[in-house]
Amino acid sequence: MKIQNVSLEEMGRAAKEAAYVLATAPTAQKNKALSVIAEELEIHAALILEANEKDLKTAREQGLSASMLDRLMLNGERLAGIVADVRNVITLSDPVGAETHSRVLENGMALCRRREPIGVIGVIYEARPNVTIDIASLCLKTGNASILRGGKETFHSNMALVKIIQIALEKSGLPAASVQYINNPDREWVSHLLRLDEHIDMIIPRGGAGLHKMCKENSTIPVIIGGFGISHIYVDKTADLERALDLIMNAKVQRPSACNALDTLLVHQDIAEALLGKLAPRLNEGKVKVLAEAPLLPYLSSVNTLEKAQEGDFDTEWLALTLGIACVADVHEALAHMRLHNASHSDAILTHDLRAAETFINGARSAVVYVNASTRFTDGAQFGLGAEVAVSTQKLHARGPMGLEELTTYKWVGKADYLSRP
Amino acid sequence: MKIQNVSLEEMGRAAKEAAYVLATAPTAQKNKALSVIAEELEIHAALILEANEKDLKTAREQGLSASMLDRLMLNGERLAGIVADVRNVITLSDPVGAETHSRVLENGMALCRRREPIGVIGVIYEARPNVTIDIASLCLKTGNASILRGGKETFHSNMALVKIIQIALEKSGLPAASVQYINNPDREWVSHLLRLDEHIDMIIPRGGAGLHKMCKENSTIPVIIGGFGISHIYVDKTADLERALDLIMNAKVQRPSACNALDTLLVHQDIAEALLGKLAPRLNEGKVKVLAEAPLLPYLSSVNTLEKAQEGDFDTEWLALTLGIACVADVHEALAHMRLHNASHSDAILTHDLRAAETFINGARSAVVYVNASTRFTDGAQFGLGAEVAVSTQKLHARGPMGLEELTTYKWVGKADYLSRP
Repeated sequence: MKIQNVSLEEMGRAAKEAAYVLATAPTAQKNKALSVIAEELEIHAALILEANEKDLKTAREQGLSASMLDRLMLNGERLAGIVADVRNVITLSDPVGAETHSRVLENGMALCRRREPIGVIGVIYEARPNVTIDIASLCLKTGNASILRGGKETFHSNMALVKIIQIALEKSGLPAASVQYINNPDREWVSHLLRLDEHIDMIIPRGGAGLHKMCKENSTIPVIIGGFGISHIYVDKTADLERALDLIMNAKVQRPSACNALDTLLVHQDIAEALLGKLAPRLNEGKVKVLAEAPLLPYLSSVNTLEKAQEGDFDTEWLALTLGIACVADVHEALAHMRLHNASHSDAILTHDLRAAETFINGARSAVVYVNASTRFTDGAQFGLGAEVAVSTQKLHARGPMGLEELTTYKWVGKADYLSRP
Repeated sequence: MKIQNVSLEEMGRAAKEAAYVLATAPTAQKNKALSVIAEELEIHAALILEANEKDLKTAREQGLSASMLDRLMLNGERLAGIVADVRNVITLSDPVGAETHSRVLENGMALCRRREPIGVIGVIYEARPNVTIDIASLCLKTGNASILRGGKETFHSNMALVKIIQIALEKSGLPAASVQYINNPDREWVSHLLRLDEHIDMIIPRGGAGLHKMCKENSTIPVIIGGFGISHIYVDKTADLERALDLIMNAKVQRPSACNALDTLLVHQDIAEALLGKLAPRLNEGKVKVLAEAPLLPYLSSVNTLEKAQEGDFDTEWLALTLGIACVADVHEALAHMRLHNASHSDAILTHDLRAAETFINGARSAVVYVNASTRFTDGAQFGLGAEVAVSTQKLHARGPMGLEELTTYKWVGKADYLSRP
């Protein structure tokens, strides 16, 4: 155990040293490195697919599900997609060095905030090997060193990918330790990683609620919590009902496994009968299972799979074709329901009443709030951020989809007397 | 123990409910409450001074130092200062509701970030009772509920102050639970507070390094770490030496107990003899004790209190009239020294070389970096922030002096289709 801890310390120290170099590397050099990474990935495609085949073989032997195998699997086409993503990061603008809040103080000091890399970022993620390249290139673009820890199922794939990245970094004159991978599958290493606050500045967990909880409870390093929360659509009495049907169905069925997919529909009591009558056939079409409050059941009698909502149903993030439906008296009751049932990610109101819309926007405690739109919009690319590092549901540092700027911090810079050389 | 924890839970729950009300309270109502707080503090001055006298009596009996007694002591004048501070917060602009990053997406959605309160803020602080009013009023102005925990020495003073705040809140139609005080001196309560992540959104420790470490290691709630770090001034070979003397002395002697006071002077080898020869009499005037590297000792022979620097001296935040002095070959060696010795708060370069200045600014990993200015400038009021909640030396959420805006977060707001009412 002792030896392992020491070498994680060493990784941390090497990452910090690399971060000093990356912090002042010009954009052109970082872009060059990304370009070499893309080339090296193309050159070594066979090697990567071979490593991936080893992971797939083990996964098949261990009887992993077809969907897990699919997430894990790389092929020529997927690798080309990964390479294209790296080249896309080159086109994004580099936030490092931008100055904001510039002012001249009364005493003549010129003061501003200058954007700079955070330093060393630890990322813990699950089975998809594309995340390795994705995170490494976004961190590199923003001048951050990264220490990566993927799922044990992707061990060989990730080791091959990181080795190629390190070769490309050295060819570009940047430290190989700018991107490192924890090659020990022992869970103990994650616990130790979370306490390396001397070397690591931020932890991004990309995975389920369990991983986030573990990080929150054990990390001495700031953690970006996010990616889950119950998503609601509240249909106000002034909503356009035909439009509401399309938005509800989009939010529920387009990609039910996504964290921004609809979990609970809240319906204003005055339009419950009219809306749910029209919605029932659409829910059947979408093969959606419905869990509704007792008073709503008569309006939903034609739904194929219908149950009375039980305790806890409105606290469940379904990640599946299941929809909870509850009835509320007005926007305030909708907000009260949302507070009680952990609305923190993406929530929407459908309304044509300006006061209801503003009440909802200001009263919802969610990272993203919509008026007359689907919760599915929550996405870095949709928001024009160019990339999405994570979706934060916490309130500090960043909230909602995080792009490149959210991988940076700022320092204050004060300059005085610089014209007064005697 | 069980009963105590339950009631801390209850405080958390009440604070969260209060935060929902505060989040949408108009600026005028929050200002009215601040104005009533100021009035009530004036009306109940005698009651506050009486409570403070109890604290002073206990402190005297326990043999607290004169400086501790002074920090603890309130009188008519100090109370008037506190009241004036509350009225000053009324004049500051309210950051809540401001929209930034506004854009219209290709699909027609209007997207922006809207600033809003963080929610519930837990503040743990030491002996000065003015902090109670200070933090409570800044949190109130930004629509945040606060749970306060002061030092046990100020127990009666703080209880009296918070009771008056709560009376003022109720008179202003805001929940009394917007500001709460933990009235149990048991340290166990702090540990429990740090794990109340269901109700509390941010912890601000205002105290020494020990308190910050304890919070970092035990809190499941994001913590604002800050307020300490070794402060350096690097005097480059192109610096104006006469001006350097003034800046160094200002940084060291103006208020040596402050966290932005100078700890270590780094001198370029080419000007070491010239600078230190001029500096020695000034250091004697300022009664500064000097700990210098061996090669510099001959240049400092006229210093009254001079010692050879020992291992660890350059890692010590002096908070006293002590100054470490080291010699470096150039700006890169200065930066290397600073990295090794925890430069993270405020650091300065004195130079007329533009390249050295930019190298220093970008290479220093400090919250605030100065060119030709004293480290003592690091202060919310100096920076024009109107108030200072804390000085952060961490990299996430906020860095350097934190004003009102740093007590807020943002939510994304997306509006679509709002013109298409049929």
